[in-house]
Amino acid sequence: MPLPTSVKLFEMAPRDGLQNEPGGIVPTGTKIALIERLAKAGMTHIEAASFVSPKWVPQMGDAAEVMSGIKRQPGVVYSALTPNLKGLENALETGVDEVAVFGAASEAFSQKNINCSIAESLARFEPVLERAREVGIRVRGYVSCVLGCPYEGEIAPGKVAEVAKALYDMGCYEISLGDTIGVGTPMAARRMIEATRQQVPVEFLAAHFHDTYGMALANLYAVMEEGISVIDAATAGLGGCPYAKGASGNVATEDVLYLLEGLGIETGIDLQAVIDTGYWITGQLGRKPSSKVALAKGRASS
Amino acid sequence: MPLPTSVKLFEMAPRDGLQNEPGGIVPTGTKIALIERLAKAGMTHIEAASFVSPKWVPQMGDAAEVMSGIKRQPGVVYSALTPNLKGLENALETGVDEVAVFGAASEAFSQKNINCSIAESLARFEPVLERAREVGIRVRGYVSCVLGCPYEGEIAPGKVAEVAKALYDMGCYEISLGDTIGVGTPMAARRMIEATRQQVPVEFLAAHFHDTYGMALANLYAVMEEGISVIDAATAGLGGCPYAKGASGNVATEDVLYLLEGLGIETGIDLQAVIDTGYWITGQLGRKPSSKVALAKGRASS
Repeated sequence: MPLPTSVKLFEMAPRDGLQNEPGGIVPTGTKIALIERLAKAGMTHIEAASFVSPKWVPQMGDAAEVMSGIKRQPGVVYSALTPNLKGLENALETGVDEVAVFGAASEAFSQKNINCSIAESLARFEPVLERAREVGIRVRGYVSCVLGCPYEGEIAPGKVAEVAKALYDMGCYEISLGDTIGVGTPMAARRMIEATRQQVPVEFLAAHFHDTYGMALANLYAVMEEGISVIDAATAGLGGCPYAKGASGNVATEDVLYLLEGLGIETGIDLQAVIDTGYWITGQLGRKPSSKVALAKGRASS
Repeated sequence: MPLPTSVKLFEMAPRDGLQNEPGGIVPTGTKIALIERLAKAGMTHIEAASFVSPKWVPQMGDAAEVMSGIKRQPGVVYSALTPNLKGLENALETGVDEVAVFGAASEAFSQKNINCSIAESLARFEPVLERAREVGIRVRGYVSCVLGCPYEGEIAPGKVAEVAKALYDMGCYEISLGDTIGVGTPMAARRMIEATRQQVPVEFLAAHFHDTYGMALANLYAVMEEGISVIDAATAGLGGCPYAKGASGNVATEDVLYLLEGLGIETGIDLQAVIDTGYWITGQLGRKPSSKVALAKGRASS
């Protein structure tokens, strides 16, 4: 299959990134500034917050303030994670553009991460999807552990396909397939996409790969050869990996953009502006970007 | 083209790695211990030293002591870089198994790096190849800047093919194609191999990719799809990049091994032993391994 001519990039730094930063809770103003900088760099899809109980994820306790505080850019979709109806209602009050639900392809991970079985989690999403439909908001579906689980090990591609199909049938407009612990390699990633696209048209699938083992870019290249044209990434590689201390989480947006530019694939995003944003936010966190492209190119001289 | 079923890995840490470490000159005993640990981990090809004038590369000033000091393992090829006849004679005195010459696909890089044109460098290699033939020693040929040059920018695939063919015709048994500054992306890497394998059979070509921009594994996956089955890598990603301060150089052996294992490709090398060696040598240098796999897996608990 030929590589896509353009790719839609879904930016994860404000949510999946900051939620997992070991440095603790980032001030609301910093989160808002980050989101505004990302939009200015050309991002069209930004996951801005998570409307989950602050008891579970204190880092996202200011989700409403963040969503309400952003100076919105026209043409930019600001989305939020809404694990249940309560989260959705709270998100709707802030004028969220789009929401997301978060499932798993691993029973053990589902139990440990969201305290219910996969089937129970899908049932819990039903009213979220229904209410979102009523108010005309699109819902994105995440499937975690698609290339491996910290508790179960390998995950069968057919299981990923099954959960993706359930989310698709339920009305999710896009299914983001997450290699949560970053253990996948290219052939496994291809096989997972091959199995899933038999159940869900490939244009509705996104790749959400973590770079914990340095495999994310090789895997992204491989799945683009399978027709994937939506990619999740986090500026500066924000967000560590809770399952491997000191290791990386989300693939860095800068590295993905460099790969795509080299392949002649359009994104509409300004790489240097993203690099500079990555240096800025990691400066706030007291560290350097986890992006080799950022380190090699450096920030723009002013 | 199907992926190879096995890959020959050529270990670069003792030479290309330590030569470019910013921390200064590593003690001879440490170099020898590194080489012996790598052989014990299952490496069959180790570039151990460079017989170049210490005026140019002081880090390799103890090449003779290193080569003579190694306790050799049967079945392991210990090679050395020999830029000229004098270097070769010095290397032969230490009982080197194999030597290598180092050319470039970029005129500007050739001038700045070895102070002569590409044609002059090839002429300089002739007596090295001739003498090596006399004594029955194999010669490996390096071509640098195959995917970009710090002075010229882009390099035409045809130029790489031309230099590779010259080295092959001269008698080099293997031509290692180096993305010296790590700027390449997968399609460019494929096109470069496509052009080169029209001049030199692909089984005589090796990929020597640097991870400066994080692209090395994606590029390796792409060129394996073009038939490449010999890969150069350095344990712990040893060796920085002289053209981008603070950035990475050689792709880490650990990351390459993890990729190959995931693809079901044999190498005969013990990944955990390489990870442990990487932690040990970077401990000597006062830093951590530049390998995401090493950071994610950690050293073996003893």
